[in-house]
Amino acid sequence: MLYFTIEILGTIAFTLSGVLAAMHKKLDPFGIFIIGFVTALGGGTLRDLILGVQPVFWLVDLSYMYVIVISVLLGMVFRNQLRYLRSSLFLFDTLGIGLFTMVGLEKGLAAGLEPIMCVAIGTITASFGGVIRDILCNEIPIIFRKEIYATACIVGGVSYFLLKLTPLREEWVFAIPIVIVILIRLLAVKYRLSLPTIYKSEK
Amino acid sequence: MLYFTIEILGTIAFTLSGVLAAMHKKLDPFGIFIIGFVTALGGGTLRDLILGVQPVFWLVDLSYMYVIVISVLLGMVFRNQLRYLRSSLFLFDTLGIGLFTMVGLEKGLAAGLEPIMCVAIGTITASFGGVIRDILCNEIPIIFRKEIYATACIVGGVSYFLLKLTPLREEWVFAIPIVIVILIRLLAVKYRLSLPTIYKSEK
Amino acid sequence: MLYFTIEILGTIAFTLSGVLAAMHKKLDPFGIFIIGFVTALGGGTLRDLILGVQPVFWLVDLSYMYVIVISVLLGMVFRNQLRYLRSSLFLFDTLGIGLFTMVGLEKGLAAGLEPIMCVAIGTITASFGGVIRDILCNEIPIIFRKEIYATACIVGGVSYFLLKLTPLREEWVFAIPIVIVILIRLLAVKYRLSLPTIYKSEK
Repeated sequence: MLYFTIEILGTIAFTLSGVLAAMHKKLDPFGIFIIGFVTALGGGTLRDLILGVQPVFWLVDLSYMYVIVISVLLGMVFRNQLRYLRSSLFLFDTLGIGLFTMVGLEKGLAAGLEPIMCVAIGTITASFGGVIRDILCNEIPIIFRKEIYATACIVGGVSYFLLKLTPLREEWVFAIPIVIVILIRLLAVKYRLSLPTIYKSEK
Repeated sequence: MLYFTIEILGTIAFTLSGVLAAMHKKLDPFGIFIIGFVTALGGGTLRDLILGVQPVFWLVDLSYMYVIVISVLLGMVFRNQLRYLRSSLFLFDTLGIGLFTMVGLEKGLAAGLEPIMCVAIGTITASFGGVIRDILCNEIPIIFRKEIYATACIVGGVSYFLLKLTPLREEWVFAIPIVIVILIRLLAVKYRLSLPTIYKSEK
Repeated sequence: MLYFTIEILGTIAFTLSGVLAAMHKKLDPFGIFIIGFVTALGGGTLRDLILGVQPVFWLVDLSYMYVIVISVLLGMVFRNQLRYLRSSLFLFDTLGIGLFTMVGLEKGLAAGLEPIMCVAIGTITASFGGVIRDILCNEIPIIFRKEIYATACIVGGVSYFLLKLTPLREEWVFAIPIVIVILIRLLAVKYRLSLPTIYKSEK
């Protein structure tokens, strides 16, 4: 039940991040819907395809479609309010990536994959919706350029496997990595952290 | 037999729309072939992948490959004539989207999906070849920006489920939505209709 | 064993070509890793998806992930040396495409596909990692514009089926097409050959 609730919350958050990106590019309502849709479900769709879980999850569970349609409509109606919330876009995203990292990681475990691959699947689930969003908007994906984003997923995913070695209860082993992902992301944005550059400064 | 014929006609139409886009970007013959290929088969490939129908349809039925190779060759040889036909590009596309919407919708039905998902699958089948074409050509997909295109697919798809409630014969229930998609698209282009903008005018 | 070795060598070559493209776009270390990853595995992943071979190969064989991680790290540490090797990028790529064409073609055969489709699968395996690399870097794929690349794969793949008609031993039937792909590619780059243009010169 909690598992279901957090998927819905994350879906709303990702959809709105797609809606904002699409409105920034002045797309029409259909384009806004599709960008919201792929941002929300693109990562999970890629995960299901490479794992061989088909039909992909949102084809057989209509909740996702309803949540996205309503989120897109509300996002368009309250678009001026959303613009004020642009700085909150990071919070939306952050909740989503924390949750989806663990959802993806668990599906990797269920498919019998090695820990390193489960972390990869979790990271793909959480971050590739945004990658597809940026490609459809004709931008180099922002997470490849300047943000601590996937790195947070990777650290969170690794922490899950470390916590599993402790006597902590299962709920905590699942919940703490989500909090870790969210904290890393929030701190990174607050202190404008990014991965160390490997390019020489112009100075 | 009719089913097969209309798939071939639609494939030719989509291939030529890809060939024109690729020549507009001055791609080489291999690039033109690939863009023609993905425009024609990209939507159906994505449909088969998310439904879990593999190997995808064009791997096991060589007709598509032959039709596309011949269409691309003719498109390149008669490229100057094609350019005069640029305004006919809309007609090519329009026939294709009407047909492929219903082909995709029926595959969704065959997979036991809910009506709303069958409409989504039909729309993906008809429109995502063009989306992949535009991404490969480094453009924001045109159907996200200013055209009544996917909207026609959605209205056609919904009309199918409404017509199914009537005592009409099955052939008509299949054929009328195709005509609806084509009519909406033609009228939209003739009267330069697009989805209402949600952005404030500069005036 | 040789089969495995050549896959590893090709993977290193493709990863480094992705690393160079990503550093050219000034991506951060995570972006460089992902571009290296998709360049190396994107073609094979698309091949497995359309054939229905899931989970895709690199999820169940950790060697690829290790090879790519090490290649990316070495590529970043020795990035200045790599830059001097920029002209060697063609050689890296060339070894990779020769090998991967035949790997893909054999997987097509194993899936019971017709020769023309096996050649297509081989070409996709060898060239679509680079296509996805260029899309993620927001460029029109270079192999669509000016390079004899996929053409080499196609000629190599066709030569395989011709050689199979001869009494040559199986190892040679597998090895000679690889050499043909490499030779065509090297000669094309050395003599700056590209596919004949279909566009009229400005002169």
